[in-house]
Amino acid sequence: MTITSTQIRMAARPVGEPQDSDFETCTVELPDLEDGQVLLRTIYLSLDPYMRGRMSAAKSYAQPLEVGDVMVGGTVCEVIESRSAAREVGSIVLAYTGWQTNAVVDAKQTRLLADWPAPVSTALGVLGMPGFTAYAGLLEIGRPKPGETVVVAAATGPVGSAVGQIARIKGARAVGIAGGPKKCQVLLEEFGFDAALDHRSPSFVEDLAKATPDGVDVYFENVGGPVAEAVGRRFNTYARMPVCGLVANYNDTEAPSGPDRLPGFMRRVLTLSLTIRGFIQSEFVETHQDAFLRDMADWVRDGSVKYREDIVDGLDAAPDAFRGLLRGANLGKLLVKVGDEPSG
Amino acid sequence: MTITSTQIRMAARPVGEPQDSDFETCTVELPDLEDGQVLLRTIYLSLDPYMRGRMSAAKSYAQPLEVGDVMVGGTVCEVIESRSAAREVGSIVLAYTGWQTNAVVDAKQTRLLADWPAPVSTALGVLGMPGFTAYAGLLEIGRPKPGETVVVAAATGPVGSAVGQIARIKGARAVGIAGGPKKCQVLLEEFGFDAALDHRSPSFVEDLAKATPDGVDVYFENVGGPVAEAVGRRFNTYARMPVCGLVANYNDTEAPSGPDRLPGFMRRVLTLSLTIRGFIQSEFVETHQDAFLRDMADWVRDGSVKYREDIVDGLDAAPDAFRGLLRGANLGKLLVKVGDEPSG
Repeated sequence: MTITSTQIRMAARPVGEPQDSDFETCTVELPDLEDGQVLLRTIYLSLDPYMRGRMSAAKSYAQPLEVGDVMVGGTVCEVIESRSAAREVGSIVLAYTGWQTNAVVDAKQTRLLADWPAPVSTALGVLGMPGFTAYAGLLEIGRPKPGETVVVAAATGPVGSAVGQIARIKGARAVGIAGGPKKCQVLLEEFGFDAALDHRSPSFVEDLAKATPDGVDVYFENVGGPVAEAVGRRFNTYARMPVCGLVANYNDTEAPSGPDRLPGFMRRVLTLSLTIRGFIQSEFVETHQDAFLRDMADWVRDGSVKYREDIVDGLDAAPDAFRGLLRGANLGKLLVKVGDEPSG
Repeated sequence: MTITSTQIRMAARPVGEPQDSDFETCTVELPDLEDGQVLLRTIYLSLDPYMRGRMSAAKSYAQPLEVGDVMVGGTVCEVIESRSAAREVGSIVLAYTGWQTNAVVDAKQTRLLADWPAPVSTALGVLGMPGFTAYAGLLEIGRPKPGETVVVAAATGPVGSAVGQIARIKGARAVGIAGGPKKCQVLLEEFGFDAALDHRSPSFVEDLAKATPDGVDVYFENVGGPVAEAVGRRFNTYARMPVCGLVANYNDTEAPSGPDRLPGFMRRVLTLSLTIRGFIQSEFVETHQDAFLRDMADWVRDGSVKYREDIVDGLDAAPDAFRGLLRGANLGKLLVKVGDEPSG
């Protein structure tokens, strides 16, 4: 029996916001399984801002995608055929098979989601890479102390919402920034932030000053742009800034015009003894992954960390949903439901 | 007997490079000593780039000078009168009495330089604040590993020359940047750097690439400007950048025109997982001062750290020498000899 996979590939390198013509859909036959391999059926595909970076040719922490490559991404899949003793047919695994309905991979490239403490979709969100990014970046680089003020933007997203809630667990004040009153309401009522700010409001800069009367000790940077500029002006001495993303700039096509803000930024680094630290979550997997899974599962179970998912239906919806993600159109962890969860 | 002090004060806040009219000289009567106080006679006055920052009104890590204040600065002094049991007349102390010939201070504000392992002038240089800045910033923030490449600018200065020599002691490659062929020669022949680069050379950017074939792991930032820009483009993943000064910008009067380099800088922070950390040496005094004095005295004694002093004569020479310092005109630690060392 021939198994096919429907795939979404990068058809062209986007200039600015990705267009429909930058993607193409095609169906391919999958090879027969070799020893140690499994055939997977995608249930959930994760959409994340870093994917925009992979579509660019620029040097980064990962190899860029080439034109014709399947779009990358984390997935939750069902094993539907197996030539590995470690993976039974019917088991649910975490994989990195990208924007496609099926894939053949080595069993070693999957992680079994047996006895998962929450719905399996969370393996792509609060209990997966985004949650881990928040946990490792905040605790290892941000190091919030009780009473300090932690600020995070894109705060209803899977990283931002975890940053704010972990900050509060550690005794810090959490100030969340998001786009629009609906998201701000979710920050206060659902995620328990101490303050929520709408960066689209004309009074945003003054609102930020009011919400951070004691200044800012940790700014978890995942957006860049004017929000970062405004928060940077509130830094206290010895403030820390884990830099895990710059989504505001991902679609930029040229160096922004002046004035040149770099000298002023460096002056603040010097006079306030700031720590600015870029990171990719993979750096901390070996040292922090076990503690993360233990702590985060506890916090999700006891309700001290809540999460929200925004699930769109069908692989075809991925390009449009991805564009929306880069614009901040979704609310919560963005997932594509590519196939049904097995019943029972 | 009335004792007077000749003082140089800030007469006006400089705009750009300090002018003669920004300083004024006057002679004042000093008060009688109270219990616990000493009367000091200045032997050496240290001139350092940070003093330009104190002359600005802008918020910084220290209170700015006010118009009419005596210019600040570290000094090596002789105690010529004492009402403190801890300080005998004739002893030599480290103080912070600034640009003046005499001063009355609490004995507690001085440090006795008894059994000093080198000429007492070194208490303002290699064995003083500049040497400590290099030691703490390089070892605590830069953390060079054997075989890594450390780059420092203003490399013949008291901070830069110590950074390069300590880097080599720790097994790293030291690349020094300085202005002009004479200083580059000193870097190679006197301070033992592995490579020396003239930032005034038209081929500087290519020279830097050749001198750092394996990229840059630590850039000890004390200058800013185009040199920092060029070095930043050579950073390896996980590179560290202790930021202890930005002398290239200290005389700036307005925000530089575009393009805005901050987004590109932050992108490099993210994609290379860089650490950027501003610091003032005082942060590390409690934790690192003892180890510094022990290590550095050993290294100076055994010749593995060499130092160079540039001594100008007479307090009147201070303003002109200070302007030269900001332009990079001197070679080595800049000191003003305000009075003679006691004989014998």
